Amino acid sequence: MRPSGRQANQMRAVAIERNVAMKAEGSCLVSFGNTKVMVTASVETTVPGWMRGKGQGWVTAEYGMLPRATGSRNRREATAGKQTGRTQEIQRLIGRSLRAVVDMQALGEAQITLDCDVLEADGGTRTAAITGAYVALADAIRWMDERKLTKGKALRDSVAAVSCGIYRGAPVLDLDYLEDVEAHTDANFVMTGAGKFVEIQGTAEQQPFSRDELNALMTLAEQGIGELTHIQQAVLSA
Amino acid sequence: MRPSGRQANQMRAVAIERNVAMKAEGSCLVSFGNTKVMVTASVETTVPGWMRGKGQGWVTAEYGMLPRATGSRNRREATAGKQTGRTQEIQRLIGRSLRAVVDMQALGEAQITLDCDVLEADGGTRTAAITGAYVALADAIRWMDERKLTKGKALRDSVAAVSCGIYRGAPVLDLDYLEDVEAHTDANFVMTGAGKFVEIQGTAEQQPFSRDELNALMTLAEQGIGELTHIQQAVLSA
Amino acid sequence: MRPSGRQANQMRAVAIERNVAMKAEGSCLVSFGNTKVMVTASVETTVPGWMRGKGQGWVTAEYGMLPRATGSRNRREATAGKQTGRTQEIQRLIGRSLRAVVDMQALGEAQITLDCDVLEADGGTRTAAITGAYVALADAIRWMDERKLTKGKALRDSVAAVSCGIYRGAPVLDLDYLEDVEAHTDANFVMTGAGKFVEIQGTAEQQPFSRDELNALMTLAEQGIGELTHIQQAVLSA
Amino acid sequence: MRPSGRQANQMRAVAIERNVAMKAEGSCLVSFGNTKVMVTASVETTVPGWMRGKGQGWVTAEYGMLPRATGSRNRREATAGKQTGRTQEIQRLIGRSLRAVVDMQALGEAQITLDCDVLEADGGTRTAAITGAYVALADAIRWMDERKLTKGKALRDSVAAVSCGIYRGAPVLDLDYLEDVEAHTDANFVMTGAGKFVEIQGTAEQQPFSRDELNALMTLAEQGIGELTHIQQAVLSA
Amino acid sequence: MRPSGRQANQMRAVAIERNVAMKAEGSCLVSFGNTKVMVTASVETTVPGWMRGKGQGWVTAEYGMLPRATGSRNRREATAGKQTGRTQEIQRLIGRSLRAVVDMQALGEAQITLDCDVLEADGGTRTAAITGAYVALADAIRWMDERKLTKGKALRDSVAAVSCGIYRGAPVLDLDYLEDVEAHTDANFVMTGAGKFVEIQGTAEQQPFSRDELNALMTLAEQGIGELTHIQQAVLSA
Amino acid sequence: MRPSGRQANQMRAVAIERNVAMKAEGSCLVSFGNTKVMVTASVETTVPGWMRGKGQGWVTAEYGMLPRATGSRNRREATAGKQTGRTQEIQRLIGRSLRAVVDMQALGEAQITLDCDVLEADGGTRTAAITGAYVALADAIRWMDERKLTKGKALRDSVAAVSCGIYRGAPVLDLDYLEDVEAHTDANFVMTGAGKFVEIQGTAEQQPFSRDELNALMTLAEQGIGELTHIQQAVLSA
Repeated sequence: MRPSGRQANQMRAVAIERNVAMKAEGSCLVSFGNTKVMVTASVETTVPGWMRGKGQGWVTAEYGMLPRATGSRNRREATAGKQTGRTQEIQRLIGRSLRAVVDMQALGEAQITLDCDVLEADGGTRTAAITGAYVALADAIRWMDERKLTKGKALRDSVAAVSCGIYRGAPVLDLDYLEDVEAHTDANFVMTGAGKFVEIQGTAEQQPFSRDELNALMTLAEQGIGELTHIQQAVLSA
Repeated sequence: MRPSGRQANQMRAVAIERNVAMKAEGSCLVSFGNTKVMVTASVETTVPGWMRGKGQGWVTAEYGMLPRATGSRNRREATAGKQTGRTQEIQRLIGRSLRAVVDMQALGEAQITLDCDVLEADGGTRTAAITGAYVALADAIRWMDERKLTKGKALRDSVAAVSCGIYRGAPVLDLDYLEDVEAHTDANFVMTGAGKFVEIQGTAEQQPFSRDELNALMTLAEQGIGELTHIQQAVLSA
Repeated sequence: MRPSGRQANQMRAVAIERNVAMKAEGSCLVSFGNTKVMVTASVETTVPGWMRGKGQGWVTAEYGMLPRATGSRNRREATAGKQTGRTQEIQRLIGRSLRAVVDMQALGEAQITLDCDVLEADGGTRTAAITGAYVALADAIRWMDERKLTKGKALRDSVAAVSCGIYRGAPVLDLDYLEDVEAHTDANFVMTGAGKFVEIQGTAEQQPFSRDELNALMTLAEQGIGELTHIQQAVLSA
Repeated sequence: MRPSGRQANQMRAVAIERNVAMKAEGSCLVSFGNTKVMVTASVETTVPGWMRGKGQGWVTAEYGMLPRATGSRNRREATAGKQTGRTQEIQRLIGRSLRAVVDMQALGEAQITLDCDVLEADGGTRTAAITGAYVALADAIRWMDERKLTKGKALRDSVAAVSCGIYRGAPVLDLDYLEDVEAHTDANFVMTGAGKFVEIQGTAEQQPFSRDELNALMTLAEQGIGELTHIQQAVLSA
Repeated sequence: MRPSGRQANQMRAVAIERNVAMKAEGSCLVSFGNTKVMVTASVETTVPGWMRGKGQGWVTAEYGMLPRATGSRNRREATAGKQTGRTQEIQRLIGRSLRAVVDMQALGEAQITLDCDVLEADGGTRTAAITGAYVALADAIRWMDERKLTKGKALRDSVAAVSCGIYRGAPVLDLDYLEDVEAHTDANFVMTGAGKFVEIQGTAEQQPFSRDELNALMTLAEQGIGELTHIQQAVLSA
Repeated sequence: MRPSGRQANQMRAVAIERNVAMKAEGSCLVSFGNTKVMVTASVETTVPGWMRGKGQGWVTAEYGMLPRATGSRNRREATAGKQTGRTQEIQRLIGRSLRAVVDMQALGEAQITLDCDVLEADGGTRTAAITGAYVALADAIRWMDERKLTKGKALRDSVAAVSCGIYRGAPVLDLDYLEDVEAHTDANFVMTGAGKFVEIQGTAEQQPFSRDELNALMTLAEQGIGELTHIQQAVLSA
């Protein structure tokens, strides 16, 4: 039995509210249950030095967490003077995930930065961030399309992410914090709308896992991502 | 005429939504017009080393701004590896302002940290932060009272803040971003519910100001703070 | 009764010795009683990148304190790897104060940096620094005038600063360290030679202050700044 | 056809030379073809503060690369003043991988640090590092056993790692640099001697991958890790 | 012919003014010609953690240079966020030089920090700093003696320093800036009052030097240090 | 009697293995007894900004030590976020030593970086590094010669280094770690193949040294450097 009373293959309530930041080219507030992430997409018409003159764009991401998004206060990274290894790992993952669905030639010489800031954390912040960042990115590209800044169709597919894990011996979908702490295996899946994998990261927390267990998690992830893809489509066509 | 069409002595719409962060001992989302700041109060039952063993507490504040709270994206301070001088100035001001109304003996050996994170910025972020931080602080102290962690009444008064300035030759209350950029004098006032001054910071942006001009700003501030004090009281007794 | 035996409206002995740094375009050693600050003005004929090509100049300041300027040794900021929030606040204040009296068009594309290093600290280091920095700046601008580097009159007025406070219930002028520690309100005033305000920063240290108290401090400041202005003029015409 | 002429399921020549660092409790020089990593294991009989008094140990890893391990010189991280996100990601992975096979209770209150420094890089530095680190760790635990510092059997299994990828449409084992640059999918597998998974990280570099492709990579990895496990056993029983 | 018209074996005018910092336990302003260094000695009755409980003391030094001590402004190290390699080299040399004449047992568990801040630089700042630091140190130890904080005679000898170089083919004593820039060999000598060497650092700037040349510099240094020792003695017995 | 049983004027076994780094333009593994340093020379055809357009080159060095090169583990500098003062001192010394034998005009606008990384430390790491760096540099310049990147003969002489010290009252050549810890004087000598001095650094560790003692060390150094020069020549002509 899961702490939340959910079925093994049941996601938390997922909501994506678009256009929450007045000034950004794209933005949303995404929630997976009690996990809430604010995402903005910022378009800059210059690219980093090492990309200049190649006629193509770049998509990158930054991740942060408000100090009291968690049960006890975490030190603010700006005060500490550096981002933790965990933060860097997550923002690199978000960036890679989004780049996987963008045609950089079509984007032209522009850079889109996705800022994902966790307002409240209850497990799955990185998967919520990726899922929401796709929506903000899609809006930012529409904004560019309207201004004729793109060269053709810059988005090749959608992308979303979910975590799965082995909790008390059973594979479950979309771990919340209580489950995450106790799960003996935790895996994050990033998949396209077309159902292919962009990234898979599985980690044995307390004991190694078998190929069968990984397969069970993969099947759950395919279902969850399918649901997330529908939500993204619905929100973007609203 | 003000860009927003407001009267010279008219504040923007002010709203304070309490308990927006599930896990913090106190929290609110405060908005002064389009400026939105999320504030959490975190109680820790230890104090910094230099205060230990004195039987008294401490109140401190940290301030941050999401990268795209503004019209163009600002560099994330955690990435830059340090807080700007502006950020430090503001968080020191917030901390001083709140300490002015707290009885540190009554607080006991506990530290309360106010995290003020600007979600959207349209002028007056520091005054909104102070005004909201008082509400989060009051809730955190109630939380401590309920657990018998305080020794008597730890809050001596309320505190709120507002900015005023000389805009196109006229003194106006509660500058928004468009006014702030153009105002030739900008002053921030922090006052108690009882109507006394905790802090006053007046700066000539383009030309020095006279004592009469400062007096006009002070009169506006007294009125504005009076209104903010009523809103704080109403919200806290809801 | 003040610890130094001074009258309430009596400044400490103020001295400004010009040209103490052989190589700087302007320099002085300014003392307010036992507070001693060495100031140099450095002219560079380039401006920061963001100002280039606009035909105007910039004035900026940096502030430091020798580790043993105070009663017990402070950690050297270069060793700590960063400037404290207090240092940044002060150097931003000095820069703003001087820019208020400079015509940036007349300065041309040049930058003047005022380095204010406290050799001994006995209260009022920031006000002494501003008062001395004006003299070093005036000499640096003369140096530029002589080389035809300016376009017309770059100095619009003089500027000086003084602190006042409520010490044992009475408003007093030019706080020294012993008074500063105990004063329940501390205010810094920056004013022009013409008697207008450039900056006012009043802070309640232990209890909030009233408008009447602030008015009394303002009156003291006007007198003190008048005296400082005369000293600056005398020194610069020597 | 692979650039090296290898079969799709053929690993590079793997060698592990033990005891290359005179002073470390365990050490080896591990090479996967032209990739060479020096690993030392350092035993400290104290644990980090947050673990103290719990009667259990800790295993951690740090990773570095000599500036000219690669075709063009990389900036030295000690000079840059921080480790890159990539370095942090890798050293976190190495640490997790080794902890998965250690019984922390049996280790007692001791910390073992694995330093993995890449002398030459030709693809697969993180998998070579994990594979070698296990050998250095095993020697360090023997050293502790001989001094009766452990409480029972601290190693529960062996651990090794290998990368696989889709190169020119075909799944191949143990990517070298030329293959890594071009592969459209790259996956790292960390497995125990018993054949279970500790970590799996698959990334689509240019196009998303299917579940079938991932399965093919997993099969290759199982074979490669089997071979590495034999080499580890042979080296440790020499 | 030397730029200053000095004889080859002639030092610049050397002056040491004691007790220039009201609050330090020892202090002086030392000048070697136009090079001016302010030195303070701060006594702390605790030692660094790694020395505690051994009943002995420590002497350390820090070095800094005001940004405009030189012909063109140098970046302030506190702003840059770190000390340069040159600064660290110099402060390590000053510390070693002074420790060479202190009996750490007699000092007891106390630490003396010598802060050497260059107000004006015209060559030889490190040798002036060492020479002045001895005087400040001697005063600080007297201060400790008077309070019975020392255990016997803590100073074993005096110490002073001078630079010599090969300037236009001839060995000269006490290089000033103009000579330093052009000298093909530059050597710093630190010696005790008894005439023994504490440190010798010789560097070929443009061409290697012979043993004979080094010998000539050593002879000059012995003479110069003899003169500095007399000045130190005279100043300390005044 | 020396711990190693060596004669007073006997160097440790010295070996230099060339071309140990597949990708570098020059490289070697140099050992002085148990001290082992890996050196690579990297040629870049650009120079630092401040040298550009002058038609001449630059040679610089960086130094590092693997965390467990020593008896107990040292903190990794990349983790600490900065290089120690000792590291900076050493890499500045290595750079100066090599520049002393290079004709920067003949080098053309190119920069050669020598990375010296200590794999095992048993005293004399900086002298081994300089001695090996010369060999790597010579190979890098040959590489440039072959590609016609140099303008004439860029190497003017060879350079090598050795340490000497007063150990238990007697002058000895090439200190190992056990001797270094106990020696009351420690001196490093850098000399050219032609027998002239490039750098001499003598430090009294426990008691000052006399001119006679320094002379004895110099005589030992001349002999040791002679031997190192022969080894360098033999290795480079192999």
